[in-house]
Amino acid sequence: MRVVVALGGNALLQPGEPLTAENQRANARVACRGLAPVALEHELVISHGNGPQVGLLSLQASAYDEASTYPFDVLGAQTQGMIGYWLLQALQNALPGRQVASIINQTLVLAHDPAFANPTKFVGEVYTRAEAERLAAARGWTVHQDGGEDSWRRVVGSPTPQRVIETRLIRLLLSSGAVVVCAGGGGVPVIRNEKGKLAGVEAVVDKDLTAAVLAEALEADVLLILTDVPHVERGYGTPSATPILRVTPSALRRETFAAGSMGPKVDAVCRFVELTGDMAAIGRLEDAQAIIAGDAGTIVTPGGDYGGPDDLATYG
Amino acid sequence: MRVVVALGGNALLQPGEPLTAENQRANARVACRGLAPVALEHELVISHGNGPQVGLLSLQASAYDEASTYPFDVLGAQTQGMIGYWLLQALQNALPGRQVASIINQTLVLAHDPAFANPTKFVGEVYTRAEAERLAAARGWTVHQDGGEDSWRRVVGSPTPQRVIETRLIRLLLSSGAVVVCAGGGGVPVIRNEKGKLAGVEAVVDKDLTAAVLAEALEADVLLILTDVPHVERGYGTPSATPILRVTPSALRRETFAAGSMGPKVDAVCRFVELTGDMAAIGRLEDAQAIIAGDAGTIVTPGGDYGGPDDLATYG
Repeated sequence: MRVVVALGGNALLQPGEPLTAENQRANARVACRGLAPVALEHELVISHGNGPQVGLLSLQASAYDEASTYPFDVLGAQTQGMIGYWLLQALQNALPGRQVASIINQTLVLAHDPAFANPTKFVGEVYTRAEAERLAAARGWTVHQDGGEDSWRRVVGSPTPQRVIETRLIRLLLSSGAVVVCAGGGGVPVIRNEKGKLAGVEAVVDKDLTAAVLAEALEADVLLILTDVPHVERGYGTPSATPILRVTPSALRRETFAAGSMGPKVDAVCRFVELTGDMAAIGRLEDAQAIIAGDAGTIVTPGGDYGGPDDLATYG
Repeated sequence: MRVVVALGGNALLQPGEPLTAENQRANARVACRGLAPVALEHELVISHGNGPQVGLLSLQASAYDEASTYPFDVLGAQTQGMIGYWLLQALQNALPGRQVASIINQTLVLAHDPAFANPTKFVGEVYTRAEAERLAAARGWTVHQDGGEDSWRRVVGSPTPQRVIETRLIRLLLSSGAVVVCAGGGGVPVIRNEKGKLAGVEAVVDKDLTAAVLAEALEADVLLILTDVPHVERGYGTPSATPILRVTPSALRRETFAAGSMGPKVDAVCRFVELTGDMAAIGRLEDAQAIIAGDAGTIVTPGGDYGGPDDLATYG
C-alpha cells in the first residue's frame, strides 16, 4: 500500500519544550522509530509542519539585520532543509539498507487565490503600531493588530495548495523503494508568473491540506494526519465529548472544529476520502501502525466502516 | 555522459554584492541558464558552496538568542534547503519538462580524522578574547585569534569527505533522467557512532573535495569545478603568470596554489583524474559547455591532452 503521513508540530517539539536542536533531533528520532514499521510494510511519504521553526528563523534574522531578513518562501526552504535533515538521518538509522530521499519541494498556489487579497495568518515578530505601519509602508506588508493595543504583526495569505510541483519525482522515488520526506511546512509556496515560470510567494500553506493534495495525486491508499490526540472528538471541550472511531466525510463535516487546529485536519481527510474513495485517519503518531490496522484513531471512509487493510481493496 | 559540477561561491554571490535573497536568486537564475545546455546533453549533478550563507545564519542566531544557536551540521542543512530551493526553481524554469531533484544529503567523515584534533577553519562571529574563552569553556569550542589582539573566533575541523551517504539515491535519480542538486556546502558532515548510526558533527567539509568523491562514486565522466577565473595559472599573481590549458594531475600537483582557494580545487580535480582516469577541469561557470567541448578552462586528463568529448571514450 501507499501511505502518506503528515506529522504535526508535536512530532518535532512537545508542548512546553524549548525549541533547541537537541530536542527536535531527539523527537525526530522517536517519530521515525514509530514510523519505521509502517515503512517496512508500505510505500511511505512523510510530510511535516514548520510553524515554530520558521518563526524562530524570522526572529533571528530580524534581530541581526532587518535588511537581510529573507522572504517567507526562502525561510520555508531553510526549514525543509533542517527538518528534512533530522528526519532523513533518523529514518536511515531506523531503516538500515533502505533508501531515504529528503527533497526540497514547492507547492503551487494560484496567483488570484482570494487568500492573497485577505491575508489572515500572523507571521514573524510583534511590533508596536508605529513600527508595524512603517514596515507596512516600506515593504508592502499587510499588518494587523494581534492581542493588545500596541501589539501588531504581519499577516500573509494562506492560499489553497493546488499541486506539489515535484509529484512525478516523488512517484518515481516511491516506485524505486525509497521512503520520501517532502512537503515540509506544506511545501514552499510558488505561483506561475505571466510567463509560466515558477516564482516564490510570501504565503503560508496548510501542511495537512498539501498532504491531502499530494496523497490524491500519488493515488495513495491511506492518508494519515498524525498529531497528539488519539481521536477526533464529537463535542470537543464539552462534558459530553466522545471520540469518533469511524465516520463518513459528510458526517465529519457536519461537526464543528477549531479553525486553526482540528479544522484543517478534518478538511484534509474529508477532501482525500471524497475525491479518492480511499481511507484517511487522524490520530496519534505512536498509533500509526494501529490506525492502519483499524485499531486506533478516527478513521474516515466512504461508508464510515473499516475492518483493516483488507478493506482498502474494496474502496477507490 | 555523466557530469558532476561544483559551483563556486560566486555562482550565488558576485564579489561585493550584499547577501540578499534577491541577489542570490538572480545569480542562481543566471547560473542555471548557463548549465541548462549541459543538462540537455548530459546527465548532470550540481553541488554548490555555502560559506557566506552559513556564516549569516550563524550571526543571525547569535544576535537573537545564544541558546537557540544551532550546531553547524544543522545550519548546513538549512543552507542546503535554501540554496537547493533557488537552484531547483531556476533549473525547473530553465528546463521545462525535465525532472529536477534537490535533495538533502550527508557526507561521511571519520570520527578519528586528524582534522578534529587540529581544527583550522574559522566559523561564526568575532568575539573578544574574554568572550571567546568563556564560550570555549561553556560549549567545548576551540577558539583562535583571527586578526587583531582582541579578535577571536571559533575554529572547527575540516575532515576529509569519505563518501556521500545518498550516492545510491543520486545514481537512481540520474538514471531516471533527473538533474540532481546535492552536496551543498560539501554535504552535512556526519560520522558513524559506536553503534554504527549516523550522527551530525560540527565540521566544515570542502565542497570541491566532496564533489570529487561523489563524481568518483557515480563513475562520472567529467568533473567540473566552476569558479570566477577562466583558467588555473602557472605562477599566479606574478608578472609571468600564464594560463594552464591542458595538464596532467602530476604536473598540476607540482605547482603551488593558495591553501584556502585554488589549492582545494586543484586537489579535487587531480584526485578525480588519478582515481578514475577520466577528465576534470577548472574554469568559469559561463564556460561550462565550452570546457566540455575542449575550448575553455584548465583541463586535466591522464595524458594532459583533450580534443573534446570523443576523447572521453578513450579514458577510464
